[in-house]
Amino acid sequence: MCLIVLFGGSGDLSRKKLMPSLYNLQCQGKLSEDCHVFAIGRRERNEKEYIKALKEGAFSNSRLGGDERAWKSLSSRIYYRNFDFGDGAAYERLEAEMSKLENEKGLSGSRIYYMAVSPDYFTLITDSIGKAGMNKGAKGSYRRLVIEKPFGRSLESARLLNCEISRVFPEKDIYRIDHYLAKEMIQNIMGIRFSNAIFEPLWSRDNIDNIQISVCEKDGVQGRGGYYDGAGALRDMVQNHIMQMISLICMEPPISLEADEIRDEKVKVIKHIEKIKGGNLKERMVLGQYSAGNVDGGDVAGYRDEEGVPSDSATETFAALKLEVANRRWKGVPVYIRTGKRMSRKLAQIVVQFKTFCQIHGFEPYKEPMPNLLVIRVQPKDGVFFQFNMKKPGSTEEIVTQQMDYCRSCEYSENTPQAYERLFEDVIKGDASLFTRWDEIEGSWKIIDEILSGCTREEQNMQFYEAGSMGPDESEELLQREGRRWWNI
Amino acid sequence: MCLIVLFGGSGDLSRKKLMPSLYNLQCQGKLSEDCHVFAIGRRERNEKEYIKALKEGAFSNSRLGGDERAWKSLSSRIYYRNFDFGDGAAYERLEAEMSKLENEKGLSGSRIYYMAVSPDYFTLITDSIGKAGMNKGAKGSYRRLVIEKPFGRSLESARLLNCEISRVFPEKDIYRIDHYLAKEMIQNIMGIRFSNAIFEPLWSRDNIDNIQISVCEKDGVQGRGGYYDGAGALRDMVQNHIMQMISLICMEPPISLEADEIRDEKVKVIKHIEKIKGGNLKERMVLGQYSAGNVDGGDVAGYRDEEGVPSDSATETFAALKLEVANRRWKGVPVYIRTGKRMSRKLAQIVVQFKTFCQIHGFEPYKEPMPNLLVIRVQPKDGVFFQFNMKKPGSTEEIVTQQMDYCRSCEYSENTPQAYERLFEDVIKGDASLFTRWDEIEGSWKIIDEILSGCTREEQNMQFYEAGSMGPDESEELLQREGRRWWNI
Repeated sequence: MCLIVLFGGSGDLSRKKLMPSLYNLQCQGKLSEDCHVFAIGRRERNEKEYIKALKEGAFSNSRLGGDERAWKSLSSRIYYRNFDFGDGAAYERLEAEMSKLENEKGLSGSRIYYMAVSPDYFTLITDSIGKAGMNKGAKGSYRRLVIEKPFGRSLESARLLNCEISRVFPEKDIYRIDHYLAKEMIQNIMGIRFSNAIFEPLWSRDNIDNIQISVCEKDGVQGRGGYYDGAGALRDMVQNHIMQMISLICMEPPISLEADEIRDEKVKVIKHIEKIKGGNLKERMVLGQYSAGNVDGGDVAGYRDEEGVPSDSATETFAALKLEVANRRWKGVPVYIRTGKRMSRKLAQIVVQFKTFCQIHGFEPYKEPMPNLLVIRVQPKDGVFFQFNMKKPGSTEEIVTQQMDYCRSCEYSENTPQAYERLFEDVIKGDASLFTRWDEIEGSWKIIDEILSGCTREEQNMQFYEAGSMGPDESEELLQREGRRWWNI
Repeated sequence: MCLIVLFGGSGDLSRKKLMPSLYNLQCQGKLSEDCHVFAIGRRERNEKEYIKALKEGAFSNSRLGGDERAWKSLSSRIYYRNFDFGDGAAYERLEAEMSKLENEKGLSGSRIYYMAVSPDYFTLITDSIGKAGMNKGAKGSYRRLVIEKPFGRSLESARLLNCEISRVFPEKDIYRIDHYLAKEMIQNIMGIRFSNAIFEPLWSRDNIDNIQISVCEKDGVQGRGGYYDGAGALRDMVQNHIMQMISLICMEPPISLEADEIRDEKVKVIKHIEKIKGGNLKERMVLGQYSAGNVDGGDVAGYRDEEGVPSDSATETFAALKLEVANRRWKGVPVYIRTGKRMSRKLAQIVVQFKTFCQIHGFEPYKEPMPNLLVIRVQPKDGVFFQFNMKKPGSTEEIVTQQMDYCRSCEYSENTPQAYERLFEDVIKGDASLFTRWDEIEGSWKIIDEILSGCTREEQNMQFYEAGSMGPDESEELLQREGRRWWNI
């Protein structure tokens, strides 16, 4: 019952993620037959060939395989239109064409404008949509804006971007993508916390020693050196994905699962993150940049030798930080985060480390119990891991550590919707829970801005680490000097 | 460094459990070469043939297989002596022989008297030991009494037995066997509770809905019909094993792992078990007796048709009870127990069922979460099982239940000492933690006595259940009427 207008229809994201997701929805009967897709690209393309290329992409990327019938139905509703994003007349022609289609087919006039383009165009396109009057539909219909990351590259630029798009669309119709939020295990953070009576009572400084969030990649900059060098790990991963993970793991229980109830709680966490002042930055942060090394048996170049990266680049490809959510629940519990490129493992997970000692004073009869760990695994496999202690067989006081591992993705591989599939479904439904609200973005940029402006890059004392390692030694020391360690479960 | 005097040396227990355990200790170098074993039996036997039979039993029953060298060493220190347990002169001859050996070998004079005989002989033998002066050794040596179950068949008979043996041995030297206590997972109840910081804070009425203890057997009375009919499930299983399991699962943390610190806490639990008065017995107890049926594909006789059982027997072969430990930690939490013979599964386990709702009032956003369960599996496999909830993939509010299962015995099969191995080791060391103290036994007999005398057997309204079932329907109803169910995990 809606038109999807895909700006950036000929780009990588559309081909690899968005179109295959629409195709998956079609296969499952989750896409209305009234849903038409206008793919808008700057390049001139033959529509037939464009659709043929989409088919290959959809069939090879879909978890559901090739379904000719579903594809035939979907592809008959895909149109490719090329135009210059700055050409106002092109928007008016598009508007006329879409209105005509809506009238012919008796559609409601609801539309989704999806910005799958470089951030440089976000404002231009949104502004043009406004000027062509495409932002307002008939009564009872909606006009929604879906905007890809990055949402700004600083607090100031994010505020400016938000100000511009807010003139055209109200907050309730802006859907800011953070595709991490649509990952099953990220959504499951709430599921695990709030559907298990044994976790919530323990979920505080009383019982938790520290929280560790890791998002490690084996990949380098993948030909995006030019873009990446202007961003770095803090902007590229911490400001968005990792901040969202912190919010979900630390938030108070929302009153319900309504989007704004959840986001009200998430934003409070971000606001409670203790600001890192210039003075204590060194104690709390390690930035690194990878040098040449070896990943999975293959030699790889150092960051400064990547294409598009200046040979004296001071951009961080690794960041480790000690944060603290300074509220009643979490005060005093370190939240260690780390993210990096060209690391030895692809690993996205949240480790909740419980305190080692029982809460009973003076009672500690067993030798060397390890801490209990609850690990929410996000990538590469997803699931839940649990570490606990038992008595060593035959012994009286000695303790051995045991593991239980539940691999969700092993069990549900075929039935798990891809992140973008879920996101499309939600935008169509109007459920914004898995999208970030402006105040969340603003809050997390405040933190990143403060870090970035806290001292000059030179003062941050960039550490080099070998590609294929788990980051600079200083990252280990960040925890070691507090008697802790990273858990690479 | 001690003599072991095994009364009942030609019996089943000695052959199948005790001698193989001594042999296992020998194989592992845990038995001193100064340790000699006097096996005392009523039957006349050729010592050589007796030892040969022991070897077969040891080699085939041992987890460590056949070790000729170890056997040779051990068997050279085994002596078989037959005598009438009522013959005072025989004890004096034995005393003379043992003293001579102790002198020749320069032994300390420490001795362990092990009562592996029918309970009818406990008093007679202990008394005779006293009369022959065998209960007191030289300074620095010990004389310990190990006494098998059953310890009495009522509060009165247990008190009498205790009074008799206490005249000969002080409490500190009496080791009352409950071999369940030596099972790895029963010992591990403390390990799991007190070495995992995530469990102890939840271990109370605040977070636990109910506790279920099951000890189910597929076996019938196994030719012991005559003995069993005078006992029944309450005396045979509840008074000892199940009461011990309740104590361990419900006790306050002991100050240390010293035997008396643990037993001080265990006995408090037993004393806090709310008495079942005649009036509310029917609501809280189900007794059953098996009728003919089918177990594992084979037809089996009903209890009243078993050898040695009267055809109008009113003895219970199944008991289910709702108990309550009425202290600050547990008041209001039902402790459901059940035990029976000829059931469909062999199953000994403790299920801790946590409350379903979070402790946050009015917050219950997920549909149908199942309760969290922590299951301590004792038999047939042992380990830990954990049930938790996750969000259903692709869904927003629906919850699916997942399981994690850790099989300890699968991992440690060869390294797990048998119960009697551990018990022998502990008696030799003088560690009484895995043996029951008199006040524990007295306390649990008080409870059983009160149940048994609370109403006549007729009033108890015996329920018949088919062999090969999970007991009478009334056992299910006991939980159902409170909105609960047995977990046959």
